[in-house]
Amino acid sequence: MTQIEEAKKGNITEEAKIVAKDENIDVNKLIKLIAKGEVVIPKNKISKNKNSYTKACGIGKGLKTKINANIGSSSKMEEIDIEIKKAKIAIEYGADAVMDLSTGSKLKEFRKKIIKAIDVPIGTVPIYEAGVEAQKRKKVNSKDISKNSSKNDSKKDSKDNSKDNSSETNENPIIDMNEDDIFKAIENQAKEGVDFMTLHCGITKDLVENIHQNNRVMGIVSRGGTFLSSWIHHNQLENPLYENYEYLLEIAYEYDITLSLGDGLRPGCLEDATDIAQIQELVTLGRLVKQAKEANVQVMVEGPGHVPLDQIAANMKIQKTICDGAPFYVLGPIVTDLAPGYDHITSAIGGAIAAYSGADFLCYVTPAEHLAIPNIDDVKEGVIASKIAAQAADVALGLDSAWDDERAMAQARKNFDWEKQFQLAFNPEKAKSYRESCPVDDDKMCSMCGEYCAIRIAEKDLE
Amino acid sequence: MTQIEEAKKGNITEEAKIVAKDENIDVNKLIKLIAKGEVVIPKNKISKNKNSYTKACGIGKGLKTKINANIGSSSKMEEIDIEIKKAKIAIEYGADAVMDLSTGSKLKEFRKKIIKAIDVPIGTVPIYEAGVEAQKRKKVNSKDISKNSSKNDSKKDSKDNSKDNSSETNENPIIDMNEDDIFKAIENQAKEGVDFMTLHCGITKDLVENIHQNNRVMGIVSRGGTFLSSWIHHNQLENPLYENYEYLLEIAYEYDITLSLGDGLRPGCLEDATDIAQIQELVTLGRLVKQAKEANVQVMVEGPGHVPLDQIAANMKIQKTICDGAPFYVLGPIVTDLAPGYDHITSAIGGAIAAYSGADFLCYVTPAEHLAIPNIDDVKEGVIASKIAAQAADVALGLDSAWDDERAMAQARKNFDWEKQFQLAFNPEKAKSYRESCPVDDDKMCSMCGEYCAIRIAEKDLE
Repeated sequence: MTQIEEAKKGNITEEAKIVAKDENIDVNKLIKLIAKGEVVIPKNKISKNKNSYTKACGIGKGLKTKINANIGSSSKMEEIDIEIKKAKIAIEYGADAVMDLSTGSKLKEFRKKIIKAIDVPIGTVPIYEAGVEAQKRKKVNSKDISKNSSKNDSKKDSKDNSKDNSSETNENPIIDMNEDDIFKAIENQAKEGVDFMTLHCGITKDLVENIHQNNRVMGIVSRGGTFLSSWIHHNQLENPLYENYEYLLEIAYEYDITLSLGDGLRPGCLEDATDIAQIQELVTLGRLVKQAKEANVQVMVEGPGHVPLDQIAANMKIQKTICDGAPFYVLGPIVTDLAPGYDHITSAIGGAIAAYSGADFLCYVTPAEHLAIPNIDDVKEGVIASKIAAQAADVALGLDSAWDDERAMAQARKNFDWEKQFQLAFNPEKAKSYRESCPVDDDKMCSMCGEYCAIRIAEKDLE
Repeated sequence: MTQIEEAKKGNITEEAKIVAKDENIDVNKLIKLIAKGEVVIPKNKISKNKNSYTKACGIGKGLKTKINANIGSSSKMEEIDIEIKKAKIAIEYGADAVMDLSTGSKLKEFRKKIIKAIDVPIGTVPIYEAGVEAQKRKKVNSKDISKNSSKNDSKKDSKDNSKDNSSETNENPIIDMNEDDIFKAIENQAKEGVDFMTLHCGITKDLVENIHQNNRVMGIVSRGGTFLSSWIHHNQLENPLYENYEYLLEIAYEYDITLSLGDGLRPGCLEDATDIAQIQELVTLGRLVKQAKEANVQVMVEGPGHVPLDQIAANMKIQKTICDGAPFYVLGPIVTDLAPGYDHITSAIGGAIAAYSGADFLCYVTPAEHLAIPNIDDVKEGVIASKIAAQAADVALGLDSAWDDERAMAQARKNFDWEKQFQLAFNPEKAKSYRESCPVDDDKMCSMCGEYCAIRIAEKDLE
């Protein structure tokens, strides 16, 4: 049985016990939330049996805001060991889950390694594997591909990309993917122990064909969303994940995969936010959420993206009403596009407001976003920025554990207890290195104010 | 006449013209806002006469959110050239104003240099000079100082601080400061061309004597606030800035100094936020705002500090109502204390929400906050984080210029126009260096997705 099925029957699973303890909430209250689909515990039955991880991570209403870190290779950056290191450093700095978004040719090899290497829930986007596999089979019809591609472009590609002998077929590799590729990828990954999967079930043919009516500046920017959209558009067929949703639910039920219904039409810039296409897809996702819950499949919903600050709360609220309280998993959102190199900050702002307004699960954004695949340091900075957003929200929502840490830090500052401050800090080494750079006379000052430290003066003269 | 006096008479000053043009608003609308005290243009008459800067910076309702960068030496870090460099880099990355918060012994020398070196409004906290001067005169009564200081502390100080022969008198140097010291500092700085001054006029004797009733974790954390509070407490006298507020207004009027009424009792941790002491001081400041406006003195109000995310909007709203729409100048606010080393991010979150909710002027916070005096790189990162917060708010508030930049960036991304993206970025070099680190085949990809770039696929296959 799946977590939701057990909860509906009033059964307390081992995972529910772990989550209730971690979150310091009553386990009976927790299983009611799981039964209602307001909390999910992404944990594949396979990985449970294999004991590949002992922790359990609850995501949803009343629980601490959780953080996901994306890792994974691309065809332009394909060193498996580095990606494993990224995942480990992400977890070290507080990531609650990791998604493997690999699209490189070694994607399967990497997934097996990452599943073994880490002990937090692992998510994937199976459509990537389907696309990459289709390409590998060299079934891509190059005549179709070059249809819309100018000769200049092709020439440039072959000139610059001489080492990559598949450059011709690299263009739009997913057009000739078939339904079997998609479902085979899903099933393979389920068998390997993936805990949650992003599946863009809400991009219907109707939505794709009418996307131009929305006059978007950026069009579609979700990678999986674009894969499916161009497949749908090219083949003039309905989205297989939508059309065969019941079959998808059967697979998900069998392994207790938590579906993460992807927002393929999320906005790619502030101007495109909260438009008809985005909300129409959300409406479809709302219906699919209900179906999943009825089929005893755990489900969460993914959300934007690039959203002006004033629209974030509305986005969170509407997701919660339309999707019947299903946990909301947001990417960012980014509140300005003017800071490439700093999108961990733009998304920390959006993420904090989102989590305070109802989002349950924040996908980190690194400083490299929009520019390059993140390096190890970018991953670390991205996780820390997300931790800040999550903590800001949890404090504002009144979570006891969040407040306990805040009070402990304030007391440590008051007492000039630097070791305790480092211990409580999201990045102890960084805090310590600033402190160590200070020329100071004693513990009761730093180089900012020297002997004119307010706390020092107050301690001497006001108490 | 001061800017507010001219505006009340319906006169359009040169500064009002510059601001109206920069902000793309009607100058008659602007001077109405200045007349009502909802917009200030900090510009000392002296500096105007001296033509020491040609720009004018408007702060307040309907205008772009402005950013201040604090620089200045402490006794532990006193290299004037470095501080000048910090100011220049802050302005290069978008700071609209600079405050010199020096407390080192070369404080006067530094101020003269910084006023000459930069062309944006410059602010100070004159009480620092008063304190440092009082100490220099060696009038500090060491018997009083050691009253509350244990022998162990003194011993430790003299042991660790052997190079600093004023270590004995360094303790609580402001106790023996007299009223003349304070007003002399204010007048000297006004004559030198300082444009706005933080003055903690609202810390009354009554507030100081009753601060313990608030059971604060952190007590008083404003440096100027602690100077005055310990002076008041020690001498059992009323705050000279409160008692002689009319005299202060006369000086401010003479030079058209914009008063920045300091929040000496701002909270130093989330737990202390929005308490009775903070709001009681704000109530006093509200009365002082009215008095200033009647005396034709430009005035703004300073605000917290450390505030849980859910309390920020309320803090902004209450300031606007109590202080009669006076521009609100906030430090941060920081939304969690768990991220020392990352307080540029914690305050970007708070600053964005604050500016969206009514704050007009954001004081940057650097990554070094709570740990050390910032270095040049910290200053840069602090300014960029504040720019992000300001832009996020300005977009959410619907400012045309903010939206124009967002649209241009989205278009540049859509077009793979990297040069344009760098040009629009808050830190072009950083964005460029990420881009340059990418192994790519052509302009239409980055190392994140390689050939699976969503925009690339959509361009080929969906348009």
